[in-house]
Amino acid sequence: MEDSIANLISTYHELNAAVVDELDEEPTPLEFMRYVAKNRPFVVRRAAEYWKAVQSWDAGYLNRMMGDEAVKVVVTPHGNADAVVKQEDGLLAFIEPHETFEPFGRFLADIQKRSKMGEREYRNVKYAQTQNDNLRNEYESLYADVPKNIPFARIALDEGADAINLWLGDDRSVTALHKDNYENIYVQVRGQKHFVLLPPVEMPCVNEQPLPKGRYVPSEHTDTLGIQLDTEAEPVPVAVWDPDTPDKLTTPYSHLAKPLRVTLREGDMLYLPSLWYHKVSQSVGEEGFVCAVNYWYDMDFSGHFWASNNFVRDVVNGEKMKPAYPELETDGQT
Amino acid sequence: MEDSIANLISTYHELNAAVVDELDEEPTPLEFMRYVAKNRPFVVRRAAEYWKAVQSWDAGYLNRMMGDEAVKVVVTPHGNADAVVKQEDGLLAFIEPHETFEPFGRFLADIQKRSKMGEREYRNVKYAQTQNDNLRNEYESLYADVPKNIPFARIALDEGADAINLWLGDDRSVTALHKDNYENIYVQVRGQKHFVLLPPVEMPCVNEQPLPKGRYVPSEHTDTLGIQLDTEAEPVPVAVWDPDTPDKLTTPYSHLAKPLRVTLREGDMLYLPSLWYHKVSQSVGEEGFVCAVNYWYDMDFSGHFWASNNFVRDVVNGEKMKPAYPELETDGQT
Repeated sequence: MEDSIANLISTYHELNAAVVDELDEEPTPLEFMRYVAKNRPFVVRRAAEYWKAVQSWDAGYLNRMMGDEAVKVVVTPHGNADAVVKQEDGLLAFIEPHETFEPFGRFLADIQKRSKMGEREYRNVKYAQTQNDNLRNEYESLYADVPKNIPFARIALDEGADAINLWLGDDRSVTALHKDNYENIYVQVRGQKHFVLLPPVEMPCVNEQPLPKGRYVPSEHTDTLGIQLDTEAEPVPVAVWDPDTPDKLTTPYSHLAKPLRVTLREGDMLYLPSLWYHKVSQSVGEEGFVCAVNYWYDMDFSGHFWASNNFVRDVVNGEKMKPAYPELETDGQT
Repeated sequence: MEDSIANLISTYHELNAAVVDELDEEPTPLEFMRYVAKNRPFVVRRAAEYWKAVQSWDAGYLNRMMGDEAVKVVVTPHGNADAVVKQEDGLLAFIEPHETFEPFGRFLADIQKRSKMGEREYRNVKYAQTQNDNLRNEYESLYADVPKNIPFARIALDEGADAINLWLGDDRSVTALHKDNYENIYVQVRGQKHFVLLPPVEMPCVNEQPLPKGRYVPSEHTDTLGIQLDTEAEPVPVAVWDPDTPDKLTTPYSHLAKPLRVTLREGDMLYLPSLWYHKVSQSVGEEGFVCAVNYWYDMDFSGHFWASNNFVRDVVNGEKMKPAYPELETDGQT
């Protein structure tokens, strides 16, 4: 059985280059649909160069538009929102960030100030990353600066965006390896994002484990964040292997992964296909912050794709639970 | 592991209706690409009604165009070309038909005559079904009567047809359950074809077995066909389960299959997606013959689809080879 799984991953690599395609311009809906059919990513350099957001979103403009609005900000000790954390007892847990609301102007100033300070001075990392269609709600006054849809995706998928999200933070925030049930169009506005991408067939490499859930909570008298486990919650399956420390927390298949790496610069657009694992780090732009916008389109659960990926997971999990039998003597001799 | 495989098939059925979509008109290239992405079939009724072939291919016209040309004809005792045959020793083998050449006019007259005779009178069934791009070669004089490509498929897949085939026979010929590595556009010209279709995830249901190869050969002094096994040839994997006799030659998964059935009438068009299993039987038209044309387009081996299907096959074959271990005693008691 181990060979079947290894064979799946190596067959995939034999048939697919370990690079992200770079397109000269936005694809037509049909060209996009071919990428969706293959579930393969691409980048279009400078596709969003002409967007008002890319042209205008400097700190001054953002403050004028949003300065007094209260926005949701997540806070973590090390920029590790929704991440695997090793607790004092050595056990892993999936820890969600502390959430606060603060005026956008104060949040942005804080981000910029921290970017100018040395690493020593850091305390608690902030990130605006609510992923709940915030650009059409919390940040509505900025929504006019981006297209209401990505035309090639809307036409190809025959649906509007399910969510449009704004992401704003500094280069301390890292999004841990995970996957989403969405077709994702990601556009860089300020600074850079560094993506590490793994196709869904590399699920056996990422070491998904059911982890207890918890949350960072502030201590009563300091601004230190502590971990509070949710003992009521069901464990959640989380990828614990990190493609940037590939020798730790491995599975027997981790060494077969061929992570794709791509950096988005201001105005670049990425198609991140559904169920691809991605880890995202970032570099701040000129003004000391990173900002991006993404469009989530519902993926198609029909056809074979979802069922096939479920099957890989089932086989991998079945494999893990199988007792280690001795080799059978098949020739009747000992 | 058995549960993983059963779960794959049932998940697929939960997410996909067990019917063939019927479209009112030909899809656009984008609409077609959505079906290719999902690897799901559809029928367009009367899509080819205006083709010269559908308008004109009666016996008189075909004889005028092709009468004296020698064409390749396969001959089998029961209409079972490329089929599983149980030999006298009870073992199964994959038997290819006897091949002959004869003038088209004589072949067509023979087909028509046999259609008028009762079943008792049958001896050896003929079928023109070379599947080697014959409409652009052997039947070139008829090629002007069909489009050189199916426009929506050519544009969506960004390639011309790899092969265009003509099929002509009577209702004794049945094509046994098998799959092809092609995207297939199938058009009925005369008579009817009755398709039984199984999606690729039902591979565990079809009981693929490595069978010895053979061929029907005529006896020296009679026109009886006997089987000659090719003892040099590698065994070929063949689906031995028949969806029309679902209780015979089963696997533990055969009962989970939900075969789709669709009949093509004159002028109808079927998209038969790559790697779908299909069994095809037929009914003659007014003049006592059945005729169809199909376009094969190369399938895309990149992305996840081919690799995923290989994986299912690997797991199923690994499962078959696994020795039946006794249940482990895990609680230390007996």
